[in-house]
Amino acid sequence: MRTKTKNGTTNNNPIGIFDSGFGGLTIMSAINEALPSESLIYFGDTAHVPYGSKSKSIVIKYSKEITSFLIRYKVKLIVIACNTASAFALPILKKTLKVPVIGVIKSGSKAAVFASKNKRIGIMGTEGTINSKSYLREINKISICEVYQQACPLLVPLVEEGWNDNEIADSIVKKYVEPLLEKQIDTLVLGCTHYPLLRNILKKNVGEKITLIDSAKATAREVRNVLNKKYLFANLRNKNFLKFYVSDNPNKLKIIGSRFFSKKIFDVKKIEMSC
Amino acid sequence: MRTKTKNGTTNNNPIGIFDSGFGGLTIMSAINEALPSESLIYFGDTAHVPYGSKSKSIVIKYSKEITSFLIRYKVKLIVIACNTASAFALPILKKTLKVPVIGVIKSGSKAAVFASKNKRIGIMGTEGTINSKSYLREINKISICEVYQQACPLLVPLVEEGWNDNEIADSIVKKYVEPLLEKQIDTLVLGCTHYPLLRNILKKNVGEKITLIDSAKATAREVRNVLNKKYLFANLRNKNFLKFYVSDNPNKLKIIGSRFFSKKIFDVKKIEMSC
Repeated sequence: MRTKTKNGTTNNNPIGIFDSGFGGLTIMSAINEALPSESLIYFGDTAHVPYGSKSKSIVIKYSKEITSFLIRYKVKLIVIACNTASAFALPILKKTLKVPVIGVIKSGSKAAVFASKNKRIGIMGTEGTINSKSYLREINKISICEVYQQACPLLVPLVEEGWNDNEIADSIVKKYVEPLLEKQIDTLVLGCTHYPLLRNILKKNVGEKITLIDSAKATAREVRNVLNKKYLFANLRNKNFLKFYVSDNPNKLKIIGSRFFSKKIFDVKKIEMSC
Repeated sequence: MRTKTKNGTTNNNPIGIFDSGFGGLTIMSAINEALPSESLIYFGDTAHVPYGSKSKSIVIKYSKEITSFLIRYKVKLIVIACNTASAFALPILKKTLKVPVIGVIKSGSKAAVFASKNKRIGIMGTEGTINSKSYLREINKISICEVYQQACPLLVPLVEEGWNDNEIADSIVKKYVEPLLEKQIDTLVLGCTHYPLLRNILKKNVGEKITLIDSAKATAREVRNVLNKKYLFANLRNKNFLKFYVSDNPNKLKIIGSRFFSKKIFDVKKIEMSC
């Protein structure tokens, strides 16, 4: 992918990416693939994971502290690589931060509307994302669609247990998608960064006719658009780096993280959060 | 149950009980039933739940902050109603606090050794509890036994989803207990305060010959023993109270908490934690 800015200006500062845990590494992986010259700093808030079952106010508090940390690294753009944090914290971070902030919900919504022919779209997400109705609102800003939501609290622990493709995963996924299939959706948004790891079993349960929308690629495209628009691409000869931080359990990211990130993760640092 | 102290001295101060979330309410319920004159203060650390997948250092940090909060209420005794926090934080809290501290692991271990005839005991618990090997150590302090451990990370989210008795719960429980059954255990410790809610499905999967040890009743007995030994029983005419605090989502405790606590929970207050 070409990464030359319109007027030749470049900016080698890193892009900051954060999530409640490991799931956001699927987004980081897509960004790294689409924009290989960019330096990326990842922060996984493993001291507070999961965000999906927590309140709006506390997710905003955690997101603010993480972005303050990322800003110290002079990041030129921040990606909220977590659906729950995008649902709860994006509006306030956009207002308070001086760098552009991208969430995953807008990109996923755009891709879903683009893919759907019958304008009947299903959303799977955590309790927090679903209760926030963010996908519903975002999709209806773009086009009038019937949107059907399903909270799926067991899918994150299922993926973290590594049971991505067994009979239990199959029964759980079936139970969650059944009410959506009854609504004759033709497009299904995987509204949590863990869910792409269940792609095979999801595909099997929803059939070939339903398009699965995984926001990782859509978010990488959105990052590219914003860098382009704001003249922020790194130089193609940039000696880029990938850095990984967590608020707890650095070793676990090294071990489990590779399931989510396409490359092996060697160095992870732990940062004490004050909240 | 009689609650008169040896020398007639009484102490109406409350007992403090804490857990990472709601599970500890099963312990609180057993204490309330065994010692109805006692005032009880519960703290559920719902801002950081679950502890089971987090590191020792961070669970100790959270436990210290919670006990500082409880101490402000002049609690006369603290119960760590969480297996992971008992495994990680009990030794340090015992050293640093002036009031007696009781965890759930010692009581569960005692009950298991007492129940087992063939001295082959199985332990189900969270990742943190199992990796700490606390049950293994505690049981072998009492008697030489073969102890077989199984981490069961999906059971907490399963109970919180309310799927306590369906086919999916059945398959998950079967997968976790199978390796333990192969070891011919005759006693199985439910090493997490959520698991008693899966009692029916566990019973079905392990059969009638295996004794299930739920540490709630054993912990209530331990509380009674300590109060007796230290002359700390409340007066039988004590106008006792039950108080509930959480670090996030007070409404959720009211709704979900009743599944764990035998009485309806009306009033829950949110406390901001500094860590």
